[in-house]
Amino acid sequence: MQSIRVRTDRRTQMVDITVEVQRVVTALGVRVGTCFLYVPHTTAAILINEHADPDVASDAEGALDRMVPLAGPYRHSEGNSDSHVKTMLVGVSQFVFVEEGKLALGRWQGIFFAEFDGPRERHVYLKVLPDRV
Amino acid sequence: MQSIRVRTDRRTQMVDITVEVQRVVTALGVRVGTCFLYVPHTTAAILINEHADPDVASDAEGALDRMVPLAGPYRHSEGNSDSHVKTMLVGVSQFVFVEEGKLALGRWQGIFFAEFDGPRERHVYLKVLPDRV
Amino acid sequence: MQSIRVRTDRRTQMVDITVEVQRVVTALGVRVGTCFLYVPHTTAAILINEHADPDVASDAEGALDRMVPLAGPYRHSEGNSDSHVKTMLVGVSQFVFVEEGKLALGRWQGIFFAEFDGPRERHVYLKVLPDRV
Repeated sequence: MQSIRVRTDRRTQMVDITVEVQRVVTALGVRVGTCFLYVPHTTAAILINEHADPDVASDAEGALDRMVPLAGPYRHSEGNSDSHVKTMLVGVSQFVFVEEGKLALGRWQGIFFAEFDGPRERHVYLKVLPDRV
Repeated sequence: MQSIRVRTDRRTQMVDITVEVQRVVTALGVRVGTCFLYVPHTTAAILINEHADPDVASDAEGALDRMVPLAGPYRHSEGNSDSHVKTMLVGVSQFVFVEEGKLALGRWQGIFFAEFDGPRERHVYLKVLPDRV
Repeated sequence: MQSIRVRTDRRTQMVDITVEVQRVVTALGVRVGTCFLYVPHTTAAILINEHADPDVASDAEGALDRMVPLAGPYRHSEGNSDSHVKTMLVGVSQFVFVEEGKLALGRWQGIFFAEFDGPRERHVYLKVLPDRV
């Protein structure tokens, strides 16, 4: 199991980690397989979406904050119940195929670490499993 | 890696692709394994839900459109920021087990391509990996 | 493929199944691999989030019920269209890595069965696949 460290700066923030994930795939030398990504946190998630126009990520940050309000009613006393709910909606496990040593992302896709209770020091776990021949 | 082509007709549309996915599983001859599904787009997703009553899919199309409004405030200039957000919520990677050569879906489950910015010509990537014995 | 039985008591309810999943991992004797979890229902999902403070789960139950209203407009006649939509948002397939025979969950993470149309008798399918050495 590999790990990538992510530092976030804002409460809700999408951080493009595509380059870091590809670096792990390359280092492991897997040519054809699947890259499994997992976030071991309860207020941060992993998603795949457009990274060509950074406005997409910032629009999504705003939209998620409007969908899941900071003010409840909530009982959890840490003031981040909304962060937990956003994490449940986006999810902490995702995979991407690997072909010819490269992440088989769509033309506009990038991999984002989705922070919902930053700023924090965070981690992403990943495994790159080769297909059986 | 296999690919299925999907043509969509409406802006938000759930397209049942269960038969096409089973056809790939059958063609590959995998008896026991896992079918991994991946959508390489940033405004379309993949989900598994009821396909017996088509009203479920159309109700969900409406509910998602109400949850993530077309009108922002958004900065992304293509007018489809809501489509990106719906894609993040539903997700672009899902898997289903394969048993005795068949998708191990629940009784009411089908696999849907979830279009959020159609009509378009789209693709789903898939791999069917046999379990190690 | 293994199966875990879950009994739910309320319409919307998150049930912590971490202990049951770890029991299957232990029984199968997989030391290093990945645990794939799948819910074969159309109104129940699987998610990973905080299980230290039970208020997080109950806050999330309320937040999801507010986000996806029970009253539509919906056409599906069973009165559970909201349950289907919540299931699509949370998702029915998730995975967790296994290291040294243990689920590689984050410090605060637990695995939850997410009931959205209970009370019912439910199932979770799972496979624990060892990494190739």
